[in-house]
Amino acid sequence: MKLLHEKINNQGQVRDGDILKVDSFLNHQLDVAFLNEVGKEFKQRFNNEKITKIVTIEASGIAIACIAAQYFDVPVVFAKKTDSRNLDADTYSSNVHSYTKDLDYAVKISKRYLNDDDHVLIIDDFLANGQAALGLVDLAKQAGASVSGVGIVIEKGFQPGGQLLRDHGIHLESLAVIKSLKNNEIEFATN
Amino acid sequence: MKLLHEKINNQGQVRDGDILKVDSFLNHQLDVAFLNEVGKEFKQRFNNEKITKIVTIEASGIAIACIAAQYFDVPVVFAKKTDSRNLDADTYSSNVHSYTKDLDYAVKISKRYLNDDDHVLIIDDFLANGQAALGLVDLAKQAGASVSGVGIVIEKGFQPGGQLLRDHGIHLESLAVIKSLKNNEIEFATN
Repeated sequence: MKLLHEKINNQGQVRDGDILKVDSFLNHQLDVAFLNEVGKEFKQRFNNEKITKIVTIEASGIAIACIAAQYFDVPVVFAKKTDSRNLDADTYSSNVHSYTKDLDYAVKISKRYLNDDDHVLIIDDFLANGQAALGLVDLAKQAGASVSGVGIVIEKGFQPGGQLLRDHGIHLESLAVIKSLKNNEIEFATN
Repeated sequence: MKLLHEKINNQGQVRDGDILKVDSFLNHQLDVAFLNEVGKEFKQRFNNEKITKIVTIEASGIAIACIAAQYFDVPVVFAKKTDSRNLDADTYSSNVHSYTKDLDYAVKISKRYLNDDDHVLIIDDFLANGQAALGLVDLAKQAGASVSGVGIVIEKGFQPGGQLLRDHGIHLESLAVIKSLKNNEIEFATN
């Protein structure tokens, strides 16, 4: 996605540890006009899939999922990482390992909001090791829902998440794939 | 806001401890078409205010803020509750006391994304004791920004947050004000 590549080139900052900071438009400050272009692109790429619900994970994913949902005309459900008084006791739950933080955490969705009629599009900002996305796939499968696809804004192509999802037979669409962040330079895998 | 009252009456669930669960459309599953009506209502109510940025707090606030931002044509910045590798070291920070969880936590915004030119509309899902909203007001003031208003979807009118904000001279708009949740019945303060 050309506009996304431009945003990353102009505003992205590479930090030690293969970190790409894009908090001026995607992770902290949110460029909502740009997110609409992202939403349109997801709609185009998943136009042939049946989708009844968009599933994402708090926090940054919520912005992308909600704006995109306007083009699919479906509700969003966001998985929670922490227990809250507002979460039903009766949830689907999956353990996710975070390599960056070196800890496990649970992602949960109330059983009310996913069921076996659902065709789920999973949306998230980043794909690196793929553990969060696989956790959301697991939640959908626990509900008996089918996974219509995974839509990612930025995939770190030098980490295994993309291949893992494809190995599961999942329709993955990443709007930008980063080949390398070596020497603080951003190299895209595709144009 | 009539539509909101209807949604609360039809889908809200009252739980012990004055908890109003609205996770079918606002806190967990997100009814994006409805959020667009909320966004339009905020635009109408703050139409006379100069607004350059919408500020909210993760996680539920992000959905409302992003959809509303489309009607104001401004970016969103969401305050973070936890440190992450993606957050700049140089932040505005304010301590917030959570009465419901009985703990203090810091809310932070990178100094890059709030400055003294900004006119900030603060948006959040709930207003109860007002501590989170006052934390966001504090972040804006640290940046030298002016606070154009606070827009809340559901105010618990029987808790002190609304009065606290008005005492600070802040233009507060709550789309629904709950007068009481006693005996598991939802009573609105206004129609």
